[in-house]
Amino acid sequence: VDKILIIKIGGNVIDDEAGLSSFLKNFAGIKERKILVHGGGKLATALAEQLGIKQQLLDGRRITDKETLRVVTMVYAGYINKTIVTLLQSSGCNAIGLSGPDGNLITARKREHPTIDYGFAGDIESINAELISSLIRQDFTLVISAITHDRKGQLLNTNADTIAQQIAKALSREYETELIYLFEKPGVLMDANDNTAVIKKINPAYYSHLKEKKIITSGMIPKLDNAFEALGRGVKKVKIGSSDAIKELINGTAGTTIVDDK
Amino acid sequence: VDKILIIKIGGNVIDDEAGLSSFLKNFAGIKERKILVHGGGKLATALAEQLGIKQQLLDGRRITDKETLRVVTMVYAGYINKTIVTLLQSSGCNAIGLSGPDGNLITARKREHPTIDYGFAGDIESINAELISSLIRQDFTLVISAITHDRKGQLLNTNADTIAQQIAKALSREYETELIYLFEKPGVLMDANDNTAVIKKINPAYYSHLKEKKIITSGMIPKLDNAFEALGRGVKKVKIGSSDAIKELINGTAGTTIVDDK
Repeated sequence: VDKILIIKIGGNVIDDEAGLSSFLKNFAGIKERKILVHGGGKLATALAEQLGIKQQLLDGRRITDKETLRVVTMVYAGYINKTIVTLLQSSGCNAIGLSGPDGNLITARKREHPTIDYGFAGDIESINAELISSLIRQDFTLVISAITHDRKGQLLNTNADTIAQQIAKALSREYETELIYLFEKPGVLMDANDNTAVIKKINPAYYSHLKEKKIITSGMIPKLDNAFEALGRGVKKVKIGSSDAIKELINGTAGTTIVDDK
Repeated sequence: VDKILIIKIGGNVIDDEAGLSSFLKNFAGIKERKILVHGGGKLATALAEQLGIKQQLLDGRRITDKETLRVVTMVYAGYINKTIVTLLQSSGCNAIGLSGPDGNLITARKREHPTIDYGFAGDIESINAELISSLIRQDFTLVISAITHDRKGQLLNTNADTIAQQIAKALSREYETELIYLFEKPGVLMDANDNTAVIKKINPAYYSHLKEKKIITSGMIPKLDNAFEALGRGVKKVKIGSSDAIKELINGTAGTTIVDDK
């Protein structure tokens, strides 16, 4: 079975021009098959502010009104996606940038909630694993933005962590999949203020303990929930760490590895 | 030999939400293989103005400074491209939206001029006909934005009319290609103020005559020059007309047909 890495980058990598360029050089050099998933970062928020569109966050999720949807589509599917693709191409990596509507790659449905109107936020319905697999066999490196659609002509804003997780799950039928979340810290930390306090391994029992002791903060919980759900559905490994240490994270000498040793 | 239509839409189609949606329903219904090429329209100019980025036009070409490049990349490759793709998908057309850097689809070089700095404007160097042809064989309908790249990590803004023409030329080795320019008029007009005065056919001799008599205005000249160059390089037919009459334009009962009857 072929191995594939599904790597998700966050705002900290995207927002720093020099850092992004250096990360993408390292990414292009990864020998394994790989997919890059990205969201937006501060650029979308900054653009919305410049345009006088008020931004509302709820539990870390952006309330996506019509104007905000236009902004995130422009920033994620346009500027960031194409900037990443052209930088990868310049490093000899044959990247192709896609969003949910392209070839019906990712479909979602508008989130319904009894009391909160999330606007054009989409929860994933399906991943077109056949299309992804076919493009991988044609030696493309996919760069996927967090913009999805509902098949009825509506674009939707979707959480990039969840997209990465769902892609990893969908591909695990055909590939040995490894899901890698890159963020601003060297891994999951015992002490949020101490970057040397990386937890090397977390299993479900230890995760419960860390949550109980409130060592794991609210921002990490969705990431770790995503990780354990992926492991329960065929994904071989989940790793969390810094984009600066992508090579060490892949070879297992840095970051946090999430394991399901039930 | 299979036939393929390369259809370019302009700002008049893109700027009108209802018009775009109705055009795309008609486009999805076209039985022949087809590729859609689009630029930007007024949205990019409006966004640049909102952001306080001064826009300079020279002979109808936008001077693309760094900030303007970011705006056109967001609008063309992001918002417009993905809006078109999701609308086509909702009409049962398996569209995939690409820009120049994707799979190295279109490479360009930054325009050099002895006295004018066009900024990040790109003149086309190569079209990846092999990639286009391969995606066509996989039954995708390509939607291509006017953003290209230089293979060295730089995105560039490129004229969409020229992209459509170069794609038609590049595909004419393998397909019977027809190039269709859609704009706000029913065709090339004898009198710019009379929409019934459509010129049915223009050949090179007649074109010279029309230019001499100043019947053809400056905006039409690059389009017609593009058309004749395409005909000289293997493209079978070039048609110019209104997006409302796409079906009639294809079956030859509306618009202007450009022919090279040397």
